[in-house]
Amino acid sequence: MLVTGEIFINGQWLAGQGTSFQAVNPATGETLEPLLTGASAEQVGVAVAAAAAAALELKKLPLTQRAGFLRACAAEIMALGDGLVERAMAETALPRARIEGERARTCGQLNLFADVVLAGDFLEVRIDTALPERQPLPRPDLRSFNLPLGPVVVFGASNFPLAFSVAGGDTAAAFAAGCPVLVKGHPSHPGTSELVARALAAAAQKTGLPAGTFSLLTDSGHEVGRALVAAPAVKTVAFTGSFAGGTALVKLAGERPEPIPVFAEMGSLNPVVLLPQRLQADAEQVADAFVASLTMRVGQFCTNPGLVLGLAGPDLDRFIAAASAALAGQSAGVMLNAGIQQAYAAGVVAAGRQPGVTTQAVGEAAEGTLGCCCQPTLMSVSGADFIANPQLSHELFGPASIVVSCRDLAELKEAIAVLLGQLTGTIQGAPGELAAYSGLCDILGQRVGRLLINGFPTGVEVCHAMVHGGPFPATSDARFTSVGSAAIKRFLRPICLQNYPEELLPEPLRNSNPLKLRRLVNGEWTSAAL
Amino acid sequence: MLVTGEIFINGQWLAGQGTSFQAVNPATGETLEPLLTGASAEQVGVAVAAAAAAALELKKLPLTQRAGFLRACAAEIMALGDGLVERAMAETALPRARIEGERARTCGQLNLFADVVLAGDFLEVRIDTALPERQPLPRPDLRSFNLPLGPVVVFGASNFPLAFSVAGGDTAAAFAAGCPVLVKGHPSHPGTSELVARALAAAAQKTGLPAGTFSLLTDSGHEVGRALVAAPAVKTVAFTGSFAGGTALVKLAGERPEPIPVFAEMGSLNPVVLLPQRLQADAEQVADAFVASLTMRVGQFCTNPGLVLGLAGPDLDRFIAAASAALAGQSAGVMLNAGIQQAYAAGVVAAGRQPGVTTQAVGEAAEGTLGCCCQPTLMSVSGADFIANPQLSHELFGPASIVVSCRDLAELKEAIAVLLGQLTGTIQGAPGELAAYSGLCDILGQRVGRLLINGFPTGVEVCHAMVHGGPFPATSDARFTSVGSAAIKRFLRPICLQNYPEELLPEPLRNSNPLKLRRLVNGEWTSAAL
Repeated sequence: MLVTGEIFINGQWLAGQGTSFQAVNPATGETLEPLLTGASAEQVGVAVAAAAAAALELKKLPLTQRAGFLRACAAEIMALGDGLVERAMAETALPRARIEGERARTCGQLNLFADVVLAGDFLEVRIDTALPERQPLPRPDLRSFNLPLGPVVVFGASNFPLAFSVAGGDTAAAFAAGCPVLVKGHPSHPGTSELVARALAAAAQKTGLPAGTFSLLTDSGHEVGRALVAAPAVKTVAFTGSFAGGTALVKLAGERPEPIPVFAEMGSLNPVVLLPQRLQADAEQVADAFVASLTMRVGQFCTNPGLVLGLAGPDLDRFIAAASAALAGQSAGVMLNAGIQQAYAAGVVAAGRQPGVTTQAVGEAAEGTLGCCCQPTLMSVSGADFIANPQLSHELFGPASIVVSCRDLAELKEAIAVLLGQLTGTIQGAPGELAAYSGLCDILGQRVGRLLINGFPTGVEVCHAMVHGGPFPATSDARFTSVGSAAIKRFLRPICLQNYPEELLPEPLRNSNPLKLRRLVNGEWTSAAL
Repeated sequence: MLVTGEIFINGQWLAGQGTSFQAVNPATGETLEPLLTGASAEQVGVAVAAAAAAALELKKLPLTQRAGFLRACAAEIMALGDGLVERAMAETALPRARIEGERARTCGQLNLFADVVLAGDFLEVRIDTALPERQPLPRPDLRSFNLPLGPVVVFGASNFPLAFSVAGGDTAAAFAAGCPVLVKGHPSHPGTSELVARALAAAAQKTGLPAGTFSLLTDSGHEVGRALVAAPAVKTVAFTGSFAGGTALVKLAGERPEPIPVFAEMGSLNPVVLLPQRLQADAEQVADAFVASLTMRVGQFCTNPGLVLGLAGPDLDRFIAAASAALAGQSAGVMLNAGIQQAYAAGVVAAGRQPGVTTQAVGEAAEGTLGCCCQPTLMSVSGADFIANPQLSHELFGPASIVVSCRDLAELKEAIAVLLGQLTGTIQGAPGELAAYSGLCDILGQRVGRLLINGFPTGVEVCHAMVHGGPFPATSDARFTSVGSAAIKRFLRPICLQNYPEELLPEPLRNSNPLKLRRLVNGEWTSAAL
């Protein structure tokens, strides 16, 4: 399938009437064909109106149809074949294995959410039956379940052109909730976005979903995104990206006449704490695994280990030496786009100039000058200098990390205590060592969405128990996750029906329980009919 | 027990170092003894620090202890005896039966949340066990559950001096979640607040909870509230009150360096739609029940029916005539405080001056001039004038309502479509009539947290299925409820533990499932051990 550069609104592929732009191959600097067309303000309005109309229809469709749509999305993405993989590789400089893996993950997410839809737990049905004889007042019949919030704007992320983009986790979760989705495509991979959108459009058509179920509007700036978030019919926003981008959207959404929730996943430092016995036993092995995690796919993960904390001494020195040696042998990588590469380069320079920061190792320089190349970087700083300098507590997106050498356990705890909210925190400890540091686990646990023992934070499993979230500024709302089946909760709200006649009740709430849901009936869980 | 006028912080009763004030009996205008002392900024800091320390301890206590504390709170409130009832009556002008009923509701809520704690479903345990042999990558062991968010600031509401105040639904839900609570007491009922706080303090002490579990800081202005919301250790805010108050808190919380969630329940118009056959059959009966709901406790409920919509014609005229007759016979009521009475009086005058608005009936005038008296008021307006005038879509707190006469079904739907978010919506329809108006139910359902058939919205049952929430501006976040067992969700966030050693796992996540929780294990619900 060829990329045409069109946008998709109200069930139609159209030339955008906004600003045109072209994709760039970050490895070569070459522009990619064709010319892509951004959406105009009027086209944004058409897309939003179609989504608002679709929202009313979508919530009434059988759950089987909703699940069928999700599965069809996955099938249609696979049916795009190698053309999708090649376009994504050209637009992102990510290697084939990564793109193919990401495609599998994307389809896996869509199929997982199809299962979530059919299981029906997300509806959270609660029924309290009438007590007409209760004194002093009778109790009415009360039945609650979750409704879709309405049209969702999804901002595609630069670093996952498939799994956090057009048909990524946010879109899959929103569809599963019964919400139409308006995707603001990321300008770093617009051709990839269009191809995936064509798969979703085909899936929607084949499974009989309304025209406004899905729209793709890409532009190279911020206008389309702003217009989408400001549109009154839009009811929530999902975003994965930078702190600046996420907080700007939260502000914009909060200033609407009707403020709406924004779930922004804004990345983090993902601190890794190295306990003494673990270091003593395995400093070199841990260092190698750390460098592999840090530099994987040029460090362009939200969960990249950007901070290492340990107790100063010969074993931490061994770790730094081994990590430096491993890192120095890493070749330069091509980043996703020029903006990310420039921010990384500037960030490394700025961090290196902070008081007390020493650059321990830098990866190999790039050959030639073309491409958005960057070198992995390892720095170190004392606990005191880290604690005193809030600038070192902000994410530097890319393959850079800072080792914090703390003078003693008290300083280590203090260094953890000054950390802002994080997606993840990791503790590397020897067997038997962890129990002695449970207080430290507590302090770290307060600040993270996911706490790992003896692993590395890269690799975010898509499953029921995953929490890809965490306190601000890792996300804008620690009460939700953006990965895993619980991500659907962001797009739902409860409604209670009081004294509703049985024949008018939606299926999930009927006495006969036709969907065989697990329901909380008068405080007891049951799948039985009433 | 006597009211001393002290504040309660860090487990101690102290004289506040802020501005002093006195309670006022709204029925007589007399000030009530003693002098009450507001908290100083420094005292707010002490209370918040104690709450932050308590947060770390509370989440580690056994759930049985947490439940025991909630039950002890209820028992200690009852042990306050008639002194509490009399003080509340003097401060609010609410009658004995209402205060006693509210006390029962308050204790019922505390006991309900004790049950919720022991049932443990709120922890939402999800376990995905390791798949070490999985290709291409092994799956780690992932286990998630909900943690308390941390210190919660609860703003007491004026209109429920017990059930939405110091030990009300917000406090009970926050305690159940494991969060310390800092109550900003409402200056309308400070003595009542102090007495209830003494009960909570005694309960905390008897059940061995940390000193910072609970604080009461009252003042007569906004300084203490602002300082509490701005304090970095505070992690969330619960509020019941006016639109102005709620939106101001949302703004304040959003401007913090670390923004925090605010759940503000800001009231609504609670539209009641009267379908034609229902009116034809029962116009007078519906009118009587409507006036009873409207004027109950001087109309000072968030769920007061402030708007009635129907199709113009003789049957709606019968309804208006009957409601007017019933309302004209209602005696003047004493409102909760002078501010509310003045806002009501001004609001009635302003609404009466809107284009096309006719005042249909006014209740009896007050005898004498003392007290915060108000007269119930019924107005009417055409559908066209209502649709054209957004000013009529804002809540007027008190016993006033507007009947909107729509020329046809299309106009009725349009009038519903211009409504902002509501806590409740009601449809009064004859048997067999409702099915024909299901489209109208849909439009109304989109705008409300609770949809009632053939009842009135006053009376908010505390149970599992209740949703006391709804789209903005009814609340600041439609995804949550502030009444019922699901209200606990506002104060929780998930955390995922990856590859955690069994012996270090918190009890809810252990293989042996010592708490016998229902857990989602590899996608299946089970109470079994792993």
